[in-house]
Amino acid sequence: MSDHEAVVEANRKFYRAFESLDIEKMEKVWLKDRQIVCIHPGWRKLSGWGPVMQSWERIFDGVFEMSFEIGDVDVIMTGDVAVLVVEENLTQRGYDGAMKTQVLTTNVFERIGNEWFMVMHHGSPVMEPPGSEPQLQ
Amino acid sequence: MSDHEAVVEANRKFYRAFESLDIEKMEKVWLKDRQIVCIHPGWRKLSGWGPVMQSWERIFDGVFEMSFEIGDVDVIMTGDVAVLVVEENLTQRGYDGAMKTQVLTTNVFERIGNEWFMVMHHGSPVMEPPGSEPQLQ
Repeated sequence: MSDHEAVVEANRKFYRAFESLDIEKMEKVWLKDRQIVCIHPGWRKLSGWGPVMQSWERIFDGVFEMSFEIGDVDVIMTGDVAVLVVEENLTQRGYDGAMKTQVLTTNVFERIGNEWFMVMHHGSPVMEPPGSEPQLQ
Repeated sequence: MSDHEAVVEANRKFYRAFESLDIEKMEKVWLKDRQIVCIHPGWRKLSGWGPVMQSWERIFDGVFEMSFEIGDVDVIMTGDVAVLVVEENLTQRGYDGAMKTQVLTTNVFERIGNEWFMVMHHGSPVMEPPGSEPQLQ
């Protein structure tokens, strides 16, 4: 497997863990480090293993089902760091019904030994309708 | 200057270019590459030098003044790549008056020779009020 393929596979593993709603699977994706950072769409920044994993538990507790259709994935790789920009089309079913959202996400992975671990996840909502001109926020 | 200091300075240079509303200063911050990616808060993803620089021109044309108060800056550095997570408190004055917003931004810099260039900028709005519990989006 090339480095590029390994990174793309690590990214897929993250989305499989997300869809599984299983915190143990999510724990295997991330680097166990105090430097890790996670920004869920619209949330404030969370830093470090404890707060980041707690946030995933909260999200997993709040939905019955989460499914992703992944669009374009850009990969910027240099050495032991890979930055991926991912277009997520997300359907979540929770206590309030189903919701579809479009999210743009930056995922950063770091290679430790032969394995790639997530060190940063930054998701943000796309607010303009497809095809429209971008507006200054 | 240590690597860490050099990266923090490259990040400052980006915000100075942003505040200057001068496209030539912004051009000096970025790596001239088709792989660069920029996501402004709420916008769709822009890739490559042309679309990214055009977006800065549009933003600069739409405001009279832009000023940043920078909060926490996390730096995740490995080799020639640095990932910075930046809390921006932004005041912009445009045709519709002044607006204050809080933005969380991931800035990625790559070292080419001795210089650090921006390769990715991903800003997203913070929608929850300070001090509140995070909500699932």
